[in-house]
Amino acid sequence: MPRLLFTCAYDGQPYCGWQSQRGVQSVQDTIEAAIGRILKEPVRIAASGRTDAGVHAHAQCFHVDAPESCRLSMDNWVAALNAHLPADIRISCVQEVAPHFHARFDAVGKEYEYLICRAGVLSPFLRGRVWHVPHGFDADALAAALQIYVGTHDFRRFAANRGNEPADPPLDFYLRTIYRADLETDGDMLRMLFHGNGFMYRMVRLLVGTAHQVARGRMTDEELAAMLKNPLGAKTRYCAPAEGLYLKQVFYAR
Amino acid sequence: MPRLLFTCAYDGQPYCGWQSQRGVQSVQDTIEAAIGRILKEPVRIAASGRTDAGVHAHAQCFHVDAPESCRLSMDNWVAALNAHLPADIRISCVQEVAPHFHARFDAVGKEYEYLICRAGVLSPFLRGRVWHVPHGFDADALAAALQIYVGTHDFRRFAANRGNEPADPPLDFYLRTIYRADLETDGDMLRMLFHGNGFMYRMVRLLVGTAHQVARGRMTDEELAAMLKNPLGAKTRYCAPAEGLYLKQVFYAR
Repeated sequence: MPRLLFTCAYDGQPYCGWQSQRGVQSVQDTIEAAIGRILKEPVRIAASGRTDAGVHAHAQCFHVDAPESCRLSMDNWVAALNAHLPADIRISCVQEVAPHFHARFDAVGKEYEYLICRAGVLSPFLRGRVWHVPHGFDADALAAALQIYVGTHDFRRFAANRGNEPADPPLDFYLRTIYRADLETDGDMLRMLFHGNGFMYRMVRLLVGTAHQVARGRMTDEELAAMLKNPLGAKTRYCAPAEGLYLKQVFYAR
Repeated sequence: MPRLLFTCAYDGQPYCGWQSQRGVQSVQDTIEAAIGRILKEPVRIAASGRTDAGVHAHAQCFHVDAPESCRLSMDNWVAALNAHLPADIRISCVQEVAPHFHARFDAVGKEYEYLICRAGVLSPFLRGRVWHVPHGFDADALAAALQIYVGTHDFRRFAANRGNEPADPPLDFYLRTIYRADLETDGDMLRMLFHGNGFMYRMVRLLVGTAHQVARGRMTDEELAAMLKNPLGAKTRYCAPAEGLYLKQVFYAR
């Protein structure tokens, strides 16, 4: 049973998110159905992590076990799978990995991009693909606030509850390291890049939404820093919308 | 009755084109309905020209006569109209023009952009927005072929029939001047820019589709040049798809 690691891009707008859910169309369901049609048997795929409804991916990774009987070459897998997928999901590459490799548990880091567009009128070509915030915040203050996140912190105030949190988590359960949280400005577009060793549920959107409060003058840098130093306080209420978020890269140890 | 000139952008994918057609949704219908809701009376708008189904616009222009009773300022017009339009059509600006100004007859030039993407796998974020041609043509040959179009020529072999052509047209009826037909390369993206004093029905797509035949080695530069020198021959059969085409700018004499 060769294990295959696929990299795919998707426009999150038409989907309820990565994960299968009853009664709605997920990215995972769509890809599993396409692979199932190729292999003529049902399959389950395992991704590097979920993405929420409306969240996009430039390079999500997932693995699947192909039966020994499958005679498709790596090159043919990409073309065959794309032929069975809608154009809003595209496979960019595939490689064979060790049988014990796991797309989620072997990931050592991830990179996310978050886009804010400041144009007064949002281009029709950007709808559903950026957070449109035409005014009322300071980009330099946003960039400075993002720097507060860099480093190893207990980020639990920037993690939404999924409902399956342990009652008595180990001390390092909410610790994450953010290597980079940069803001690039390109005309009206603000591009935030987050690189870290892992991100919790909705964490990037909560980081952006809360930094945006600082950029609006509704919170100080000190108050933001205190949310990391005192992790037992209330969770942030500021979640940036899904449509500006892109999973950009998943890192694996080689 | 002040006459207002609007500039708008639209994603052409969901529409049957600019012009009203029975039973399908056009950009024109959608804008007329939105203005009608603001003015509380039916209106007709006149654009710089039509765009086909699937063709996009960064800056289409149209005019409309507002009743004297209308008390909206220019600034409020943009916000009010955008509030009544779907997000795939956006008004970017408006100005008052002379009562005899006409968005179509006063246009002295237009600029179109045509996008070809050569990536092996097309990004889901580009679907419906480029012509995807992953291989089989030479970009330098395409750039050279485009230069053949520059100048004043009888372009009738690059005009699709609309069915309303005059039986005995004046000598200059099919004459157009192309000031610029340039190709820019940006990674996998080829961006063609056409600036001319006017373009006939489907002309840009026919120019691109035919130049692409040269870039594929199916036609020589000399054969292409002969199509301009001998305008009475058969029309070209090579029409590039609508989704790569953008009306970029309409020029008016000041």
